[in-house]
Amino acid sequence: MVHNFNAGPSILPKEVIEQASAAVIDYNNSGISILEMGHRTPEFTSVMEEARVLVKELMDLGSDHEVLFLHGGASTQFMQVPMNLLNPKDSAAYADTGVWSSKAIKEAKLFGKVDVVCSSKERNYIDIPNDFAVPNDANYFHITTNNTIFGTQWQTIPKTSNILVADMSSDVFSRQLDFKTFGLIYAGAQKNLGPAGVTMVVVNKNILGKVKHTIPTMMDYRNHISEGSMLNTPPVFAVYTCMLTLRWLKVKGGISAMEQLNNEKATLLYNEIDRNELFSTQVAKKDRSKMNVCFTMKDSSLEKPFLDFVKQHGVVGIKGHRLSGGFRASLYNALPISSVKFLVELMQSFEQKQ
Amino acid sequence: MVHNFNAGPSILPKEVIEQASAAVIDYNNSGISILEMGHRTPEFTSVMEEARVLVKELMDLGSDHEVLFLHGGASTQFMQVPMNLLNPKDSAAYADTGVWSSKAIKEAKLFGKVDVVCSSKERNYIDIPNDFAVPNDANYFHITTNNTIFGTQWQTIPKTSNILVADMSSDVFSRQLDFKTFGLIYAGAQKNLGPAGVTMVVVNKNILGKVKHTIPTMMDYRNHISEGSMLNTPPVFAVYTCMLTLRWLKVKGGISAMEQLNNEKATLLYNEIDRNELFSTQVAKKDRSKMNVCFTMKDSSLEKPFLDFVKQHGVVGIKGHRLSGGFRASLYNALPISSVKFLVELMQSFEQKQ
Repeated sequence: MVHNFNAGPSILPKEVIEQASAAVIDYNNSGISILEMGHRTPEFTSVMEEARVLVKELMDLGSDHEVLFLHGGASTQFMQVPMNLLNPKDSAAYADTGVWSSKAIKEAKLFGKVDVVCSSKERNYIDIPNDFAVPNDANYFHITTNNTIFGTQWQTIPKTSNILVADMSSDVFSRQLDFKTFGLIYAGAQKNLGPAGVTMVVVNKNILGKVKHTIPTMMDYRNHISEGSMLNTPPVFAVYTCMLTLRWLKVKGGISAMEQLNNEKATLLYNEIDRNELFSTQVAKKDRSKMNVCFTMKDSSLEKPFLDFVKQHGVVGIKGHRLSGGFRASLYNALPISSVKFLVELMQSFEQKQ
Repeated sequence: MVHNFNAGPSILPKEVIEQASAAVIDYNNSGISILEMGHRTPEFTSVMEEARVLVKELMDLGSDHEVLFLHGGASTQFMQVPMNLLNPKDSAAYADTGVWSSKAIKEAKLFGKVDVVCSSKERNYIDIPNDFAVPNDANYFHITTNNTIFGTQWQTIPKTSNILVADMSSDVFSRQLDFKTFGLIYAGAQKNLGPAGVTMVVVNKNILGKVKHTIPTMMDYRNHISEGSMLNTPPVFAVYTCMLTLRWLKVKGGISAMEQLNNEKATLLYNEIDRNELFSTQVAKKDRSKMNVCFTMKDSSLEKPFLDFVKQHGVVGIKGHRLSGGFRASLYNALPISSVKFLVELMQSFEQKQ
């Protein structure tokens, strides 16, 4: 039995894995694999449509918002967002809360002025900044809702009169938010949504078409919208697997039900970190991520033995990122609470052995 | 039994399908799915490396050429190529031999001057232009080696002193070429290489770094090269399936063996089109594609009945593209010769019934 705490690509629901594997052999008794199926066939266009409709339904979006499944990863969105929303002389506001925010900022600077309105970089990103103001004239305000590497998360989405753009790669669908208030949301699929190789973009179409320059064809969200997210051959299998995960999410009670479970999982693990004499976390209590729990050992010489100990028991993926060290347990939607309980038990028995 | 003549995504080797399906359940007895596996794990980095090495080996490339597996489809290459190779005041030469060439030309115009040195557009792209010259000062010369929609193919790669850039999406690995002479080759995977969702780029690294502008991070080939094709999370499953297909190709005898088989398959079908009283093809004989065989019926009222007839016998994917009409049978590497023989038999029995 493997307990998969990978940060991404990461655990997917067992039912999804089984259906995806079966479709690779034979898609719905068509006699051919989903990998061999034309993307313009009625079979696949209905998969794409179902995925897009499920996102709108689960996020409670209206007709202003369009859902796209694009190539390129969130890293491509770092350039695609400013290409679509920023003129060279305009400015955009960014919150700097981690490595991925910094990369988004670096890229935006190629296309216009960037105002970094807050940053926790000096504190090695262990918290989310509190006091900051977003200039009224910023074309948009960009946040990274959850910081996978440092284990922080915006518990409250900042109120702003600007267009709000969010990289939700590592916490999308994990908690209820008022998704309609966002101008643009993007998320690499490989955490809560599906396998690596596809990126979900949710965009309020009213914010598009305001820049003066020509946007390359593949970078212009409007082209993808008008073609129903099929401007070119989409990553068929990745979209199919996302659709299966979205179906699973709906059956499980949607985002609210998932949020409750995620809260339980995170509380279990943070309580143990706080209680257990061997462990601690540097992350500011108010900003603790419910998706990526980063922690260390007070005696760092015990980290290697602890890692070996949990590995022997089938726990994978809890080695921390090289930038934050220690451990990181990712508690994405598909991770069962039993895996968290098991990790907590291992932390307790390791404590007793010392 | 299904005979899959899809133009792309298209047929893959049965062994590849079976291994890919098994890896979705459990990758190499790791206890987790390939979809759940971190891309920085030794397991996946070795998959990526094997895929890159196999391409170099199969194409007989030296140390000047680098192999990348990127997101975005060939359509993204339409912009990425000029971003990397063209200054705004420089010019690039393009051959216009079909819809995909035209799209590449349209995109290049956003980044510099474009000289369309030849075009068969007026003849509805039924041939490959013969007489043309490429200006010496063009930064590069771009061709589409095989035209999926119109069924034409460059039988001989034009000799040029310019850097040669080729979109080989629909005929890569189907025939022996002197791949070392190309400056850059790109190919969407979903024909001869793997499933949709990944694009192979082979680039001579000596042609890079000559433009004066800053290239966005995800668009700069040099960044992908320095990160071993893992600049951001790659499309893990698609790369894995490509690697399996490349292994299969090597076992089958490599590109030369495949070319021989592809020649046999194409000869069988074209001979029948030429012999059979009911069928014909508009494609210039000298330029007939060995990958995508486009044909029509002399009496167009028989096309629907013929399509129904072959469908009843398990033939899928031979309806022609809306721009060229009639039929298109795609004979990619993984299509067995038995499927071509079967289609020929159906053409013969349909003829006898008239």
